[in-house]
Amino acid sequence: MTGTPRPRTPGTPPPAANAPSPAEPPEPPARRRGRPPRTESAGTRDRILTAAREEFSARGYEKTSVRGIAKAAGVDSALVHHYFGTKEQVFEAAVEVAFAPAMNAPNAVADGPVEGVGERLTRFVLGVWDNPATRAPLVAILRSAVTNETAAAVFRRLVATQLMRRVAAQLHLPDAELRAELAAAQIVGTALMRYVIKLEPLASADLEQIIARVAPVVQGHLTAP
Amino acid sequence: MTGTPRPRTPGTPPPAANAPSPAEPPEPPARRRGRPPRTESAGTRDRILTAAREEFSARGYEKTSVRGIAKAAGVDSALVHHYFGTKEQVFEAAVEVAFAPAMNAPNAVADGPVEGVGERLTRFVLGVWDNPATRAPLVAILRSAVTNETAAAVFRRLVATQLMRRVAAQLHLPDAELRAELAAAQIVGTALMRYVIKLEPLASADLEQIIARVAPVVQGHLTAP
Repeated sequence: MTGTPRPRTPGTPPPAANAPSPAEPPEPPARRRGRPPRTESAGTRDRILTAAREEFSARGYEKTSVRGIAKAAGVDSALVHHYFGTKEQVFEAAVEVAFAPAMNAPNAVADGPVEGVGERLTRFVLGVWDNPATRAPLVAILRSAVTNETAAAVFRRLVATQLMRRVAAQLHLPDAELRAELAAAQIVGTALMRYVIKLEPLASADLEQIIARVAPVVQGHLTAP
Repeated sequence: MTGTPRPRTPGTPPPAANAPSPAEPPEPPARRRGRPPRTESAGTRDRILTAAREEFSARGYEKTSVRGIAKAAGVDSALVHHYFGTKEQVFEAAVEVAFAPAMNAPNAVADGPVEGVGERLTRFVLGVWDNPATRAPLVAILRSAVTNETAAAVFRRLVATQLMRRVAAQLHLPDAELRAELAAAQIVGTALMRYVIKLEPLASADLEQIIARVAPVVQGHLTAP
């Protein structure tokens, strides 16, 4: 359930069914601490992570506690600390899983001619927002990031290093990161207005119509001289 | 302290000093209920509204109660209900005050040639966000709107009817409201990334550089064929 698949001990249960399929970022952050887990570890770790996602989604960052996550997962708090560390680190792991679908955005950028990059990126990211299953964890993260500084810092670190920098790396331009962020501002602003605030007529407009309007803007931010 | 100045009884205290100067939207919602207030009403009403803004900003919509607002204003809860109605209606009045600086955006659109509308609107709205005094209440509203459906409904109603429709009315185009919302998505998305999430390099970039990049996009959304 982490960013990069790790070898699993034979016989351990598969990842929780409701978790999105993992993306494969090139540099997953090392966050496991202490001695290596025992045989049943993958199942326990996944159960804790699933409980953490549900707790953070339902309560937001501030009201969620390591104790509450442990209780929901049916384990001792010490085990949560053993696998993930602090509450902030549990949150980071949960955010990483929630972000897994969006983490393919850099591939959408790389996967085709540069003239189509605006449409590919817009279509991909708004597609992730348009699907209720992949939207829910994003809304939960956004809520936590907007209301809590620690959660914002986690969001910032993950989005900056794993998403923006990887999109920027495809552009081969000196101000690529700022370009990527202004493009993201248009896409995320549109998603916020349409799916969270639900401002009309934007909320009910056809997705293709929105992509047709937003894609040229994203293209401009990313590639215009 | 409402959207439209009302005649004040001579001798009543002026509006609270920390409230922004009121904008003048053409159709303020009628929300005062019951019999007209007595002589000391303007001072009491303003004190309640100031307390409400502080409570909603500090705690968010969900954790704020009419009882807490009344306590902070040094009045009975019944008086809060008398002047404003429900908690949702107190919130709406508080949001209207917080939004007062942004409510001049339609004037920024109207006040000059159509070729400059993108720059005027971008400069005006990012200017409101760039000023910590006018930014704080906007961040507070955004937090409440993102985390609570009732608060989102209030935000939606105010932004839609008092901001988007008035900007759209300046454009004289059939799809003007969708245009205004996509322009707002770029500006608000940029403000969110820069001032709330604080994503770098966007957060530290020179404001003029950001305006120079965002204004043509806003212009395009608002006026491109």
